[in-house]
Amino acid sequence: MSAPDLLATRVRAINVGLAGFADPIRAHDASVVSLDWRPPAAGDRDLGLLAARLADDPDDPVGSVVAAANAEAAARLLGAHPALVDVQPAGEMIPALAGERLLLHSGPPIEWGRMCGPVQGAVIGAVLLEGWAATADDARALVDRGGVRFEPCHHHGAVGPMAGVVSPSMPVVVVENLAAGTRAYATLNEGLGKVLRFGAYDESVLERLRWIASTLGPALASVVRAGGAIDLKGITAQALQMGDEGHNRNVAATSLLTRTIAPTVVRAVDGATAEAVLTFLRGNDHFFLNLSMAACKSALDAAHGIPGSTIVTAMSRNGVDFGIRLSGTGDAWFTTPVGVPDGLFFPGYGPDDANPDLGDSSITETFGIGGFAMAAAPAIVRFVGGTPADAIAFTRLMWRITVARNTGYALPTLGFAGTPTGIDARRVVETGVAPVINTGIAHKEAGVGQIGAGIARAPLACFEAGLRALARTLDLEVAA
Amino acid sequence: MSAPDLLATRVRAINVGLAGFADPIRAHDASVVSLDWRPPAAGDRDLGLLAARLADDPDDPVGSVVAAANAEAAARLLGAHPALVDVQPAGEMIPALAGERLLLHSGPPIEWGRMCGPVQGAVIGAVLLEGWAATADDARALVDRGGVRFEPCHHHGAVGPMAGVVSPSMPVVVVENLAAGTRAYATLNEGLGKVLRFGAYDESVLERLRWIASTLGPALASVVRAGGAIDLKGITAQALQMGDEGHNRNVAATSLLTRTIAPTVVRAVDGATAEAVLTFLRGNDHFFLNLSMAACKSALDAAHGIPGSTIVTAMSRNGVDFGIRLSGTGDAWFTTPVGVPDGLFFPGYGPDDANPDLGDSSITETFGIGGFAMAAAPAIVRFVGGTPADAIAFTRLMWRITVARNTGYALPTLGFAGTPTGIDARRVVETGVAPVINTGIAHKEAGVGQIGAGIARAPLACFEAGLRALARTLDLEVAA
Repeated sequence: MSAPDLLATRVRAINVGLAGFADPIRAHDASVVSLDWRPPAAGDRDLGLLAARLADDPDDPVGSVVAAANAEAAARLLGAHPALVDVQPAGEMIPALAGERLLLHSGPPIEWGRMCGPVQGAVIGAVLLEGWAATADDARALVDRGGVRFEPCHHHGAVGPMAGVVSPSMPVVVVENLAAGTRAYATLNEGLGKVLRFGAYDESVLERLRWIASTLGPALASVVRAGGAIDLKGITAQALQMGDEGHNRNVAATSLLTRTIAPTVVRAVDGATAEAVLTFLRGNDHFFLNLSMAACKSALDAAHGIPGSTIVTAMSRNGVDFGIRLSGTGDAWFTTPVGVPDGLFFPGYGPDDANPDLGDSSITETFGIGGFAMAAAPAIVRFVGGTPADAIAFTRLMWRITVARNTGYALPTLGFAGTPTGIDARRVVETGVAPVINTGIAHKEAGVGQIGAGIARAPLACFEAGLRALARTLDLEVAA
Repeated sequence: MSAPDLLATRVRAINVGLAGFADPIRAHDASVVSLDWRPPAAGDRDLGLLAARLADDPDDPVGSVVAAANAEAAARLLGAHPALVDVQPAGEMIPALAGERLLLHSGPPIEWGRMCGPVQGAVIGAVLLEGWAATADDARALVDRGGVRFEPCHHHGAVGPMAGVVSPSMPVVVVENLAAGTRAYATLNEGLGKVLRFGAYDESVLERLRWIASTLGPALASVVRAGGAIDLKGITAQALQMGDEGHNRNVAATSLLTRTIAPTVVRAVDGATAEAVLTFLRGNDHFFLNLSMAACKSALDAAHGIPGSTIVTAMSRNGVDFGIRLSGTGDAWFTTPVGVPDGLFFPGYGPDDANPDLGDSSITETFGIGGFAMAAAPAIVRFVGGTPADAIAFTRLMWRITVARNTGYALPTLGFAGTPTGIDARRVVETGVAPVINTGIAHKEAGVGQIGAGIARAPLACFEAGLRALARTLDLEVAA
């Protein structure tokens, strides 16, 4: 085709249908733009009508309730100010753990028989740690005969990474959202390698957990007593300027926390303990993860329980099911089977070795950091896959399904815009844009540990079910 | 104009001359692209010919020497591996300081009478600190009558931020480039506010300097003895993934350093000293700056002194003159008067209060970090001005005037490309692209302190003079 031809009148088309429709036009050298358009609610007419019925509308009795409820939920999320106020044994902070043989786990409720390998391994480890059985075989027998009860961390104000198993003697961080008084708990991060949260329970794992209970937990409690509450919002906000996203990358926050508390560690505990604590913090780039999770939980709990609100207040996985909660639907979980994340595997491992997605750590994305703040963490793509441009694109995409931007957590590469905050189940359903979650990948067998990291997308079915349930709370008729 | 007209044959022009040439064409709604073209060497025919004469050329006796020399210089820069190996009083590490009343200062050589306010203030403070005079008046009188000699830090393997004054009792970090054995020195960073490097010398300043000499320096020396050399390349490389650029933003590197050494601090010194040292490190986000500077100096000194090399091995300012050195021109300085940086001022201050650009800290840009690595530090624009996009554009621009990319220092936002390394004076002269320098802005009066931060551009005249001198070393005839 000659240059004058190119400048002459020609066909230019926009294709809204199947990609193939454009091929004949392109075959004639004409220009075609393919619009990435999908019908609302994936073409589900009833769901589309429902989402429309719940749309913000000041003149409509339903639409005005939802709008006001979501505005309130967003305000509580934006106003949250988490701080570390104590470190204490879980049994002392969570009353249910003190009474009977109860263990907490990540994700929505699940019984022993359905638990995945890593969670079963962590359960056995916790039973051994608590001295409820002397051997792994005895522990398994005890659980098999119903000698241990299980409940989700989320039912007790707690969150746990991966298996998320919490037993009475484990120290937990006590994080208080100073703006609302809501408190959340998480265990102390064990580091990488053979650790309980990936289902390992050999003597080295139990020994580390005993040291955490006997030394690290009490030392950090002394630090908080001596130095006062530690501002976690400030650390996370600064870490987002330093390449962390608060879920899979925590090296900046861990370093800032260590630098913040180091002088107080020296003052508050004896020299040998101080050296041991600071050595542990030096060796664990992910130490801040559990604090980040508890901080997000303390914020989201303040936004939970607002009638009519379609804001998501929990997203979580137990390795079998993915579950969410909405602010306006109380304690109900909306669950669906969970898949294996798409990611990068450590040498020698692949998707066939991977456990389906696991852990409460997606509480960070629920709050608007983690995968939602990937634009802050271009270096993370070397861990979870993709390119720095993908990282920025994910954050932009999450703005489409959230109701607010939290400028308290600014994203430098996006002109210091705020993190996408307040996932609106309506927008997820209407747009079909699934929340993105940065996640570690566990081996499906207990105790092998982490074998990769990647990006998961929350399954849309949970949000559709949640939205239907929310509509019922507003006395709307909902198709089955 | 109707749509069919727009698609019909039309004038499309590229304008290479003055911008105004395009106006009449635009006035007729035609498309004009203005090419930002400048004649090589700013139209200076002799300089253009000289740069061409020095161009890489394997078949030319001159061009082959320059090409090989620059390849060797680049290889030494890329291979550099700086580590902190000791902390000792300057008088013990720099022999000249032990003999007589000599003070080192930043930038190229300058006599007392021409020094700017902040440098004169720092000199008075150093005289008081060393006990060479009892009052500021006595100190000034001593210097006025020639009782103190001055030499640049650079003449003694040292670098100093801002005034850069080094006196015998001040502890210096001893940074060794493990690849080449070159060593460089820098004092310990005092923090912000009233500090000697901005020309303050009241009792609070001297007291802090005495504490640094009596406590901080010896404690860090003990830490290095107890824990071994500290890998500064590793810390800087990681910090570039965490929003630092290694000059004006050092919070990540300072936090990583603190986290790295904290356990050893506890082991190596008594509890009170450990707490004091860790408290100081907690309060000074810029502590790593001086280590970063010494690390860059140790790398650049390994690339210095290669006959025929047009690579820049130092850029520095004394608040009056800007000076550079080239690898192939030995100890010669090429200087020109220095201006005030373009930047953001702290409340209450403006350009009229500012001292012209000052300090050896541009050694970081000379090595390829600092302003050259701004793409790593989008958050820095809140400190030095501009937008995150500008930060990325500056790094891209610096690639045009450098001979290599150092993938040991990867830039996440640019797809993990390496920092622009090895400033080639030929390219600076040919392109007219001046090296960019992130810098603090000092008040012009001694002791007021930092009043802003901004971006400076190295003056082109230094590079032109350097290139002419380099040509003479190759027996080329050079126009005056």
